[in-house]
Amino acid sequence: MSRPLLQLALDYTELPPALSDALLLRDSVDIIEAGTLLCLTEGLEAVRQLRKLCPHKIIVADWKVADAGETLAKQAFDAGANWMTVICAAPLATVEKAHQVAMERGGEIQIELFGNWTFDDARAWHKAGIRQAIYHRGRDAQASGQTWGEADLARMKTLSDIGLELSITGGITPQDLPLFRDIKVKAFIAGRALSGAANPQHVAQDFQTQIRDIWGA
Amino acid sequence: MSRPLLQLALDYTELPPALSDALLLRDSVDIIEAGTLLCLTEGLEAVRQLRKLCPHKIIVADWKVADAGETLAKQAFDAGANWMTVICAAPLATVEKAHQVAMERGGEIQIELFGNWTFDDARAWHKAGIRQAIYHRGRDAQASGQTWGEADLARMKTLSDIGLELSITGGITPQDLPLFRDIKVKAFIAGRALSGAANPQHVAQDFQTQIRDIWGA
Repeated sequence: MSRPLLQLALDYTELPPALSDALLLRDSVDIIEAGTLLCLTEGLEAVRQLRKLCPHKIIVADWKVADAGETLAKQAFDAGANWMTVICAAPLATVEKAHQVAMERGGEIQIELFGNWTFDDARAWHKAGIRQAIYHRGRDAQASGQTWGEADLARMKTLSDIGLELSITGGITPQDLPLFRDIKVKAFIAGRALSGAANPQHVAQDFQTQIRDIWGA
Repeated sequence: MSRPLLQLALDYTELPPALSDALLLRDSVDIIEAGTLLCLTEGLEAVRQLRKLCPHKIIVADWKVADAGETLAKQAFDAGANWMTVICAAPLATVEKAHQVAMERGGEIQIELFGNWTFDDARAWHKAGIRQAIYHRGRDAQASGQTWGEADLARMKTLSDIGLELSITGGITPQDLPLFRDIKVKAFIAGRALSGAANPQHVAQDFQTQIRDIWGA
């Protein structure tokens, strides 16, 4: 199992603070995400500018696509994204079409797990060629201060066994990482945990150190 | 039951053709929708420009929000949208927060029904104050040339009975409208049926005439 990556999620309503964070943290993280909020407010320019600023990083367009998979995948990948998210509620045809474009362009599709989805869905996505999904901690659990629960971890384990690598998000801190040692983790996604920190680069280093300590170099 | 409205969906990857369609059809339709594709490529500017061009029309930001309901609702309504879409896969907390902002700003939230959802979800949305949902014809049905099926109509009827007004979309033509006479239709949404027509204003008039013939003035 390869080492989990660290992903910076940029959830701003304007480009300048997003670009500033990207500049500050691009050498400390592996993946830069143009968050849904940023994409809906700034449009494709968000992806384009991040690609320009971070030419060698993996760029994610967190579009949570529900329809028009082919057209949107073309837009995202041609603007410089490496990965694009598709919402789990999307019809399978949308997933397949987006995946087709991703393969043609050397990109990847990530299924965003939100609300209702089933392990049968997960198996169908895997059969369609999808290898990545994004797992969110239940909001209620997060809001009520609970840590990651056994139910979350068991579901992640099953998704891993189905063959999906998971990016994990929802208020993750470096201290949480040991919880996930048995999961096939593609990336840990952090937004405010990084950008809201007094010393963002220091927190990024804490994440990377923990990752190396647990998963090896 | 009030007369269904006619909604123009603008699904372009750039603003100029969208604005050109809006200008051509704004007097023939009731609602102008900034489609997801347009919003993801052009950002909030799409909503702002449509508001400027169509000051007296209902403007929809078709964002299919899955998270950050409060922040995104503020962005959409402050930019000039009247209605904003939330994907059915969104957590109920997201729906509630978006609805709260909508109420404060005199806007409305529409739940976009895509993939897995249940009538229990629909009852929960209604209980949270939501009064609108968007019903898509199954893509497979559409692609294989089938018309609206009994299953679609029965589900729409149940949603109506729960108290949700429906906007209906998926390759609708004026000839399809009589099918929906027993449904609580908020709007018929047409994209290419209008903008792709040889005479878009003529097709819009056909829709409006059919609506008046079936539902009254």
